[in-house]
Amino acid sequence: MADYEQILSDTKDGVLTLTLNRPDRLNAWTDVMHNELKHAIVTAGSDEAVRVIVVTGAGRGFCAGADMDVLQGIQGGARDRLAEIEETPSDLRDLYPGRFGYMYACPKPIIAAINGACAGIGLIFALFADLRYAAAEAKFTTAFAQRGLIAEHGIAWLLPRLIGEAKALDLLFTARKFTGAEAAELGLVNAALPTGELMGNVQHTAHHLANMVSPRSVAVMKQQVRKTYFQSFGDSLAEADAAMEESFTTFDFKEGVASFVERRAAQFKGR
Amino acid sequence: MADYEQILSDTKDGVLTLTLNRPDRLNAWTDVMHNELKHAIVTAGSDEAVRVIVVTGAGRGFCAGADMDVLQGIQGGARDRLAEIEETPSDLRDLYPGRFGYMYACPKPIIAAINGACAGIGLIFALFADLRYAAAEAKFTTAFAQRGLIAEHGIAWLLPRLIGEAKALDLLFTARKFTGAEAAELGLVNAALPTGELMGNVQHTAHHLANMVSPRSVAVMKQQVRKTYFQSFGDSLAEADAAMEESFTTFDFKEGVASFVERRAAQFKGR
Amino acid sequence: MADYEQILSDTKDGVLTLTLNRPDRLNAWTDVMHNELKHAIVTAGSDEAVRVIVVTGAGRGFCAGADMDVLQGIQGGARDRLAEIEETPSDLRDLYPGRFGYMYACPKPIIAAINGACAGIGLIFALFADLRYAAAEAKFTTAFAQRGLIAEHGIAWLLPRLIGEAKALDLLFTARKFTGAEAAELGLVNAALPTGELMGNVQHTAHHLANMVSPRSVAVMKQQVRKTYFQSFGDSLAEADAAMEESFTTFDFKEGVASFVERRAAQFKGR
Repeated sequence: MADYEQILSDTKDGVLTLTLNRPDRLNAWTDVMHNELKHAIVTAGSDEAVRVIVVTGAGRGFCAGADMDVLQGIQGGARDRLAEIEETPSDLRDLYPGRFGYMYACPKPIIAAINGACAGIGLIFALFADLRYAAAEAKFTTAFAQRGLIAEHGIAWLLPRLIGEAKALDLLFTARKFTGAEAAELGLVNAALPTGELMGNVQHTAHHLANMVSPRSVAVMKQQVRKTYFQSFGDSLAEADAAMEESFTTFDFKEGVASFVERRAAQFKGR
Repeated sequence: MADYEQILSDTKDGVLTLTLNRPDRLNAWTDVMHNELKHAIVTAGSDEAVRVIVVTGAGRGFCAGADMDVLQGIQGGARDRLAEIEETPSDLRDLYPGRFGYMYACPKPIIAAINGACAGIGLIFALFADLRYAAAEAKFTTAFAQRGLIAEHGIAWLLPRLIGEAKALDLLFTARKFTGAEAAELGLVNAALPTGELMGNVQHTAHHLANMVSPRSVAVMKQQVRKTYFQSFGDSLAEADAAMEESFTTFDFKEGVASFVERRAAQFKGR
Repeated sequence: MADYEQILSDTKDGVLTLTLNRPDRLNAWTDVMHNELKHAIVTAGSDEAVRVIVVTGAGRGFCAGADMDVLQGIQGGARDRLAEIEETPSDLRDLYPGRFGYMYACPKPIIAAINGACAGIGLIFALFADLRYAAAEAKFTTAFAQRGLIAEHGIAWLLPRLIGEAKALDLLFTARKFTGAEAAELGLVNAALPTGELMGNVQHTAHHLANMVSPRSVAVMKQQVRKTYFQSFGDSLAEADAAMEESFTTFDFKEGVASFVERRAAQFKGR
């Protein structure tokens, strides 16, 4: 396991849990944190021991946004110190360039467990996860318009596709605070839960994904959905038809049908 | 009326109701069923006696997905036996190729009344309807990931456009069961109703569409909306402006304005 | 201030409120009203005294749709008498041509306060606002299909992107009446409020946008979001990255960070 400074990493029963770990700063975002998360997620993408990735925050917050020292440094001329981390070239990575596109390119599902404050670049990081669950009392804000900034890192593209244009403009323009409960109503997170039940529920979903469905199915589907924004219906369908034919030849398909007919739990292998 | 084996067909007051009719198998999907539904819907598209099409299931289920005999047959090398059914060539059909695109190309509105279990290819069939109403207790699942399969027949493209990406990934990845009530919350169906009120409500909407609005308006709108995914705003608007000018010359426009001014029910002719 | 005949215009503390003012006709739409609204909004776009624009209706209605005299005139061969109003050329205007595209091109946020009946072209006008709030009892309808008309002025393109395809087809096909409360559930408006609280809430949001966030940020974001429908993720991101770099050099960014660190209200200048 890599030796990280600002995140914690723990793998159990196929689920890798990554915890942003600067609790005294509400896990405010730094370049070091960025580099460590990217290293951990890119590595997990090809680690057979990992089927699902969970990201969460230590202490009361998830990620309160860019560290103020970083923002003040920018005014003094400082710039990002992002490490070059080697990624597997892929169609997905080409379609989603930039700082967080590696998360979409990762073949494993990524679940954000938003335990508390989620702002600015912390919100963007969460938007690049595949599924999002929030503590009902967690405070969210896009933050940018209250700092004289703009819709950064692709959020202008992602947010209307996720929650519709009118809600996206509201959150971007006003930069108002909203709770995890409202985030669920807006469709920004899949569900809001009482704080004490958040991690239990997320781990339940993560273990369901690690054990009850074919990891191969999930990897293909993640690519399929994220590609459709750049495809006609016909092109998407042609890829789906080819992928369906291919799936007919796999162990996981045979196991999926056999386990159903035999009324037993499936033992998927991801191939 | 055609002589069908696995579906029932009934036309009344402009509403064609097609019922998947293998109740002992929860109307599990077969090639025969596919061919019969397609024949019935394509035929209805040019039948002046039909203004609206309703699809539903006999007995407790809507459609529980592919018949297991079919899936097991595929493992033995069997393939689809889909009939060639002649369709009117159209822009819409070119934009939506594949197994279910004929439903989008049909100029009449198609309403799915999801009375019970709706899974796999049964769910996809329902997604190609224009409007969907479900029994609140009906059980839904995408099913694919639990069989080692992928997002088939275009659902990867349709689902994020219908309910947003995060919800689509949840349903596809987990293949979890969800109810008609949750389907309504997710935006997957237009409304969920108590089982006993489902067909009454759907028939009410169907008869409203058959009698209270212009069939010509509906046919044009169905094309307009489904084309927009392949058009710039400007192209869509140019087509709308031309279609608006054309509508000014129709009987239905004169009747629509006259009936409003005279405070009486309109008698539309669809031209 | 221009001398308008069918609208009222009032600017206070950076908020321009435009009121459709034909209350005896539920503010039914006319060419004169169109010309006056366009003149007022285009003018406000470059007026430093205006940061936010609110549009609402006088009396019980917001806008009940096209004036019936206009629709009947069309049957007699009459056509629009739309004035040529000079607009600043922009990418946004090129992407959104037609009757209402000037509203998207306006660099100020436009909020619709839908106080009552909102139908046909009145609904389309409201859809071109950036944010929408409705009285819970306000009656909405697309109206077109009940007049033998089609999805006019771009609504076929806008509506599925705003509320999803199934809900859009329901509202367009059936032309049924629905309330402001349902409009909020559908995602058509940002929120529904008791009639007596509508304008107070809208003015609160308008003054928040005028005072608490950077007008420069909002103007850039409005462009960013509306452009994404015509951009790949990568193109949108490249523009965002360039805009972010530019924002680092502005007064509003320095003020946004300083006010946060100093725990005081920001005084944005919009540059």
